[in-house]
Amino acid sequence: MYHFDQSVIAPFAQQYLDASEDEIKDRFQQLLITEIDQRLEHNIWGITTGQRIAYQLQRLAHQADIVLDLHTGPISSKHLYCPEYAKASAEYFDIEHTIFIQNGFDGAMDEATFCPWWSLQEAYQDLGRNFTMGEGAFKKESFTVELGSQEQIDLDVAKQDALGILSYLQSQGVIDNKQYQPQKMTRYACYLQDYKALYSPMGGMVDYLGEFGKPLAAGEPLARILRMDNYGDGEALHYVSLEQEVIPILHFASASVNQGTELYKVFCNYFEL
Amino acid sequence: MYHFDQSVIAPFAQQYLDASEDEIKDRFQQLLITEIDQRLEHNIWGITTGQRIAYQLQRLAHQADIVLDLHTGPISSKHLYCPEYAKASAEYFDIEHTIFIQNGFDGAMDEATFCPWWSLQEAYQDLGRNFTMGEGAFKKESFTVELGSQEQIDLDVAKQDALGILSYLQSQGVIDNKQYQPQKMTRYACYLQDYKALYSPMGGMVDYLGEFGKPLAAGEPLARILRMDNYGDGEALHYVSLEQEVIPILHFASASVNQGTELYKVFCNYFEL
Amino acid sequence: MYHFDQSVIAPFAQQYLDASEDEIKDRFQQLLITEIDQRLEHNIWGITTGQRIAYQLQRLAHQADIVLDLHTGPISSKHLYCPEYAKASAEYFDIEHTIFIQNGFDGAMDEATFCPWWSLQEAYQDLGRNFTMGEGAFKKESFTVELGSQEQIDLDVAKQDALGILSYLQSQGVIDNKQYQPQKMTRYACYLQDYKALYSPMGGMVDYLGEFGKPLAAGEPLARILRMDNYGDGEALHYVSLEQEVIPILHFASASVNQGTELYKVFCNYFEL
Amino acid sequence: MYHFDQSVIAPFAQQYLDASEDEIKDRFQQLLITEIDQRLEHNIWGITTGQRIAYQLQRLAHQADIVLDLHTGPISSKHLYCPEYAKASAEYFDIEHTIFIQNGFDGAMDEATFCPWWSLQEAYQDLGRNFTMGEGAFKKESFTVELGSQEQIDLDVAKQDALGILSYLQSQGVIDNKQYQPQKMTRYACYLQDYKALYSPMGGMVDYLGEFGKPLAAGEPLARILRMDNYGDGEALHYVSLEQEVIPILHFASASVNQGTELYKVFCNYFEL
Repeated sequence: MYHFDQSVIAPFAQQYLDASEDEIKDRFQQLLITEIDQRLEHNIWGITTGQRIAYQLQRLAHQADIVLDLHTGPISSKHLYCPEYAKASAEYFDIEHTIFIQNGFDGAMDEATFCPWWSLQEAYQDLGRNFTMGEGAFKKESFTVELGSQEQIDLDVAKQDALGILSYLQSQGVIDNKQYQPQKMTRYACYLQDYKALYSPMGGMVDYLGEFGKPLAAGEPLARILRMDNYGDGEALHYVSLEQEVIPILHFASASVNQGTELYKVFCNYFEL
Repeated sequence: MYHFDQSVIAPFAQQYLDASEDEIKDRFQQLLITEIDQRLEHNIWGITTGQRIAYQLQRLAHQADIVLDLHTGPISSKHLYCPEYAKASAEYFDIEHTIFIQNGFDGAMDEATFCPWWSLQEAYQDLGRNFTMGEGAFKKESFTVELGSQEQIDLDVAKQDALGILSYLQSQGVIDNKQYQPQKMTRYACYLQDYKALYSPMGGMVDYLGEFGKPLAAGEPLARILRMDNYGDGEALHYVSLEQEVIPILHFASASVNQGTELYKVFCNYFEL
Repeated sequence: MYHFDQSVIAPFAQQYLDASEDEIKDRFQQLLITEIDQRLEHNIWGITTGQRIAYQLQRLAHQADIVLDLHTGPISSKHLYCPEYAKASAEYFDIEHTIFIQNGFDGAMDEATFCPWWSLQEAYQDLGRNFTMGEGAFKKESFTVELGSQEQIDLDVAKQDALGILSYLQSQGVIDNKQYQPQKMTRYACYLQDYKALYSPMGGMVDYLGEFGKPLAAGEPLARILRMDNYGDGEALHYVSLEQEVIPILHFASASVNQGTELYKVFCNYFEL
Repeated sequence: MYHFDQSVIAPFAQQYLDASEDEIKDRFQQLLITEIDQRLEHNIWGITTGQRIAYQLQRLAHQADIVLDLHTGPISSKHLYCPEYAKASAEYFDIEHTIFIQNGFDGAMDEATFCPWWSLQEAYQDLGRNFTMGEGAFKKESFTVELGSQEQIDLDVAKQDALGILSYLQSQGVIDNKQYQPQKMTRYACYLQDYKALYSPMGGMVDYLGEFGKPLAAGEPLARILRMDNYGDGEALHYVSLEQEVIPILHFASASVNQGTELYKVFCNYFEL
């Protein structure tokens, strides 16, 4: 529900082609905030409840250089959504799985924060002026930090999560305390288009077999689905597998699913960071 | 959730530029069905529950020349969604309010049915071959027939609704019984972009004042919102009005709303048929 | 979820057999409040969310001589729950239908307020000391005032409701303004055991035929149930009627019901006030 | 929602004081079924959806000598509800925690099955004729078998559960296969009144600390509640403990609770079987 209007980018770059970095930063940030204000305040037909909340959050986000959108999922391992240009930052969080996002807006908060700047950097490039994303006026980083299962609170784990965030903030110079360093771990990543959902081919009771974070070979069962109504006169057990190696990242919160319920989300074509 | 892939249209028109109308009709219908089958059957990752239902309905719809998608709304008057080229047909239903849709796909069943054919007719036109939408191979009509409030069953009204549908089917030659004729009534219409939703500017208890089907002058109150928490120290009553004349068509089902709840849907810039 | 412990009544009457009315009133009220406090505060295992709310409301109610519990129902006419001894008060509200409650506790707020005092009056009677409910120390009145359909706000009707309540408060000397007088109307009443729910004998789509407040003769249809699945090969319409004359008071909020959904609540064996 | 009418017991015992065991068994079972039939079929006002389902299940249960009501709970260890007279049978299930029920009806399926017979046995005893519950005409056993967390399917665990049920059925002579024997394990039990729910003293995010099946000493924390709104200006962490030793059996399914949410259910005053 977040807002991004690609059409304002090129005219801005044209207008401020020779402006200083400071001016670009100030004016473009102001443009983004003004666009949100227009939608929030100047609309006699009103906006939906969800859009209002999204725009209010986005208005806050546009005022920051670093945006961390802290999430939890249904039943989930930890994972990080990271814009590709900020790849180096992913290693400061204590999170084993990273999803790299390229410059495409699909409605999420993190994208709504970095896509305008990334598009602006590209627009300048088209006009012959080169900036580097993540530096100078373009020092904008935004991550969605998925901190695991939504119905489980474990304060010891929460402390580890906090330390990982401090480690990232230390790397960015937000805080200055060298004790916050990332843990050593094998970090896997894949691109957003390779972070795929598997929808249940049938309704039933699901025994989730794929373990989070553990590579699962092609053809190995990810889940088995028990169909009580097939007992006696059919196949009561159905095994679900994929034709490629994947890493399971999260699964649905209930054992009872319909045909079409999102069963698992997995990393395909993954690689080590 | 319905499917429409604009990119298949132009190549089809090119390939079958000189084909007979019968061949065009058969082959294009087959193409549409095949596209749905691809999505339904040949997808190892599966599809969501809702998409499966949508595709199954759409597969049925593609096999018909006339598609009537019967709906009810929250608390609602009757209204008809009608593609602009089928304007003449709108007068056979006993429905006082018609919304004309131009050739643009926004995900609805009716659009998913007529947009491919309309786009095909335009593609042929671009290539110099002229067909008329609603005639010959392009005799495809699809309507969403909104039959009023969803929580109210009145079998006497239902019978009138059925007679209106028979009147339309008689006009199309589906049945042959002259006794089914449309009622005389003033029919109002507006274009889809003028059928607008008004979202509540605040939470509260709503007294819906705008009557369905009755033109409401600019500035007249459409609703008043009671805010219990403002009693004593503020404005407990807030009047909601618009700056133009409208016809109220439906409103939200509950008197209790949040900021951003869809309060009313109304016709703007309406005209008589 | 409200609280009433019959076992404390007789010992209290015994202990304060010869106490003054003022002392009885003070001490018994204190006893009731203390009982609630015990449940609210002195329970290491805690209480459910609903019980806590109920006890907090009841604690307030025990401190008042007049308790009005304002309600709305699904789709409903106005009706009043009234303890039998306060029959005369029912005619001050502008409500056409009254349900008389005898001295029996079934968990409702109004009963939780008057049953202890009514039981106390009876306990004194058993011991030979006669008080009259509704007078002196026993001047406690509690009503559930059902103000109609829950999803409909009409501020003009709300004003009439307020005037009726003022008329009652004027009759009790809470306010002193003779302009608040009850409207003239035919008032019907029945006893609580004759205020009966009718549960749907089958699932289907319901056409509610019984009009609120209008006596319906025995055998006349109260509702007809449409069963789409029976079209063609069975009885698609099922009429529901009762073997006695009733007055329909409220019905279920949706036209779509299951077998066993509460269809209607009606007055049986009703009489004029 | 199940049915039990104590008032039919004594008259039956009187009427069939000298009947044979076979006649008692047949006639009493018939009486129980007839009572259910009366409620299911002979009620012009109908019954609620839930009551109909309960009565239909109970009608089935009354025709059996052994009734196993298989349940799962929110997030839960396995436990068994067992009538006290069938204590010996509890050791055949592979379930470590048993709750003994005395002869009191509180609405559950298991009680609805055995209470009528147990009450009948007592009624005969009062009349001087002694039967033993669990033997002869009174060989009726009914258990609620709680098989763990409702949102978790593990087919390997399910197989163990099935073996435990077979072990019980073998002990009762329903099947004849000595390979089904109970596992050796320490079995704990408590009485129903000592199986207690702890309701949350406040809303917040819960870190569940008490481990299922592990005795927790008095004063040790069962849970800690995180109150985000108290960060900075109050106690953000609240520890919940009890003043006696308990065994945690199940807890609420979500980490987010309100004041009054059922946090845990625990065994108090437990003992080894």
